Amino acid sequence: MPITEPDTLSPTLQLAFALLSRPSVTPDDEGCQDVMIERLRALGFHIERMPFGDIKNVWAVRGHHGPVIAFAGHTDVVPSGPPAGWEFPPFSPCIDDHGMLCGRGAADMKGSLAAMVTAVERFVARYPDHDGRIAFLITSDEEGPAVDGTRAVVEQLRERNERLDYCIVGEPSSTERLGDVIKNGRRGSLGGVLHVRGVQGHVAYPHLARNPIHQAMPALDALVNEHWDAGNDFFPATSFQISNLRAGTGATNVIPGDVEVVFNFRFSTEVTHEQLKARTEAILTQHGLEYQLDWTLNGEPFLTAEGALVEAAIRGVEAVTGKRPALSTSGGTSDGRFIATLGAQVVELGPLNDTIHKVNERVRASDLDDLSRIYEATLQALLTTDEVCL
Amino acid sequence: MPITEPDTLSPTLQLAFALLSRPSVTPDDEGCQDVMIERLRALGFHIERMPFGDIKNVWAVRGHHGPVIAFAGHTDVVPSGPPAGWEFPPFSPCIDDHGMLCGRGAADMKGSLAAMVTAVERFVARYPDHDGRIAFLITSDEEGPAVDGTRAVVEQLRERNERLDYCIVGEPSSTERLGDVIKNGRRGSLGGVLHVRGVQGHVAYPHLARNPIHQAMPALDALVNEHWDAGNDFFPATSFQISNLRAGTGATNVIPGDVEVVFNFRFSTEVTHEQLKARTEAILTQHGLEYQLDWTLNGEPFLTAEGALVEAAIRGVEAVTGKRPALSTSGGTSDGRFIATLGAQVVELGPLNDTIHKVNERVRASDLDDLSRIYEATLQALLTTDEVCL
Repeated sequence: MPITEPDTLSPTLQLAFALLSRPSVTPDDEGCQDVMIERLRALGFHIERMPFGDIKNVWAVRGHHGPVIAFAGHTDVVPSGPPAGWEFPPFSPCIDDHGMLCGRGAADMKGSLAAMVTAVERFVARYPDHDGRIAFLITSDEEGPAVDGTRAVVEQLRERNERLDYCIVGEPSSTERLGDVIKNGRRGSLGGVLHVRGVQGHVAYPHLARNPIHQAMPALDALVNEHWDAGNDFFPATSFQISNLRAGTGATNVIPGDVEVVFNFRFSTEVTHEQLKARTEAILTQHGLEYQLDWTLNGEPFLTAEGALVEAAIRGVEAVTGKRPALSTSGGTSDGRFIATLGAQVVELGPLNDTIHKVNERVRASDLDDLSRIYEATLQALLTTDEVCL
Repeated sequence: MPITEPDTLSPTLQLAFALLSRPSVTPDDEGCQDVMIERLRALGFHIERMPFGDIKNVWAVRGHHGPVIAFAGHTDVVPSGPPAGWEFPPFSPCIDDHGMLCGRGAADMKGSLAAMVTAVERFVARYPDHDGRIAFLITSDEEGPAVDGTRAVVEQLRERNERLDYCIVGEPSSTERLGDVIKNGRRGSLGGVLHVRGVQGHVAYPHLARNPIHQAMPALDALVNEHWDAGNDFFPATSFQISNLRAGTGATNVIPGDVEVVFNFRFSTEVTHEQLKARTEAILTQHGLEYQLDWTLNGEPFLTAEGALVEAAIRGVEAVTGKRPALSTSGGTSDGRFIATLGAQVVELGPLNDTIHKVNERVRASDLDDLSRIYEATLQALLTTDEVCL
């Protein structure tokens, strides 16, 4: 029988249930931050709400001097799609018969948020007068435009000359088992919205029309098959993906006048976004397309090649799992791209990412307890001189 | 000044005014058939109403033996769109200062209906004891689903083993001047709705997803470039057109799980719809696609390559215009596709089609008088041994 009542579960899982039961689809927070604030305030954190536009954000700090280590994360989740497609209701968390915590956001990233809070609770109980400062940077706009979320908070901190030395982002970094991968950087993200123009007409008279779908396909196929780069020691090869296609009036007998193609590059430090734009436009022009192309640079690539934070995170993972994590820069963008601009060392460390953004998102319940211990051990490595032990 | 009162006009134009002033948007007939029935009954036609569902149809026959020549047409019209977009109100016919009869249905095809009735009136006055039988097959559902209209009447006639030797459909076949083109067949129309399935995922983790857009493009490109046939003396090469494409959730960071592709074949008599289906599915399978494909056969191709009707229609046009018409099978589908299944010779012969389905639909008023004479001469060529003269 699935467990739907959290009363008997660990503090981390109880908190995860509380967050997962709130349908906080971007940009809504649905009270998640209030739940976290209550816990942090009880630990002596100074709480600062930083709303921008419709977006709720929190900046919370404990301690008054020394290096700042921030836990960063988001309370918003991507839409569930039709709940009927889910094995369990997406916003009624449960632990299934295989010990998996199920619900939208279980892996991305309410599970991490719960683990961060309980890790800090235990750490503060053990080291009430710890060196340095512990902070939380929480937003409800990571999965959406990401304009009024972490980016805006970071700008605020920059204006106030706030110090931020280390940041652990709770994004689901693990691939096969908990802690097997720590992300120490991220690829850049460059988006494009392409409109290919043709000439509308009746399907019965194709010689009087010019079908932009037919024209666009060879060019799009060339973009898909282009070798953009080979990556490097820290970054995989740059990838190109088409996410959305739209063409047609709905009528089956009309050749449309326009195709809209939405695509995205995830790029390494081997190419610049200017180069990607120029090469894309060259391919479109080579194929003789009449087009309009609007670009959005979502983020430049960033990298924390080495340093105290990477060391501490590796020791934290080793202390809990007994295995050394790999460093990687693969995967999507995260709010780490904004935080890195403050000069902070940034890593992402969280649960397995195999179900994120999919139906039946889930994460092993015991992994969240272990993740909480990893975070605690990382704090210990970074802020104390004790041998890391839990 | 535009002519808005038909009293001084020819009988054909007076009848056209009467039909055009009725806003008979599919499936409504708005009394048009009653107007025609009154005229035909006065000529001794046996009138049979054949309603199916909401659709009004008429089958009217004059004469008791010999070959049957039917005039076929529809009283329904496509919507006008906002009347404010029209130079004259769409359902208040007038003849403008350039001699053009204006109104929705002027060309498609109430003008033809008026010309048919007056042609038969003159023919019967001259040959009251003509050989053969003259019939009318009129529907109010040609521009709509076309299920309960001509198709249903034809099925009824088939069940009763009614004879139908020749059929003149009044569709606007002319392109540059009246009678320059007679349609002696139509291409087939075969529609497909293709769903290509992939695996949804995050654009940052393409190795965990399978992008159905990327997978579908080479296959679609192959379908676009396939040489389906070379056509023949009567038909252009079979054409394949994609009319609609849909993929993506709207989110720019999600690889979609499905692409929907709507396409349409217009096909010659060199291929069958079974062959087109098999070849399409073979190409999709060759490209390794996981797909679902739903087919709709809108119409088989039909052809009246030669014969007494084509001869008579050519002579009719020549007698009135002095020029020989071209035979063509180009353009969309028409109710001829249903009538041809009775084994009848079928041609389409009507006014210029340059304004059909558009705002400010119009036809030269004198063309309708000439069209009536063409129909009369065609009857004369087909049903009498007289030299065709008017």
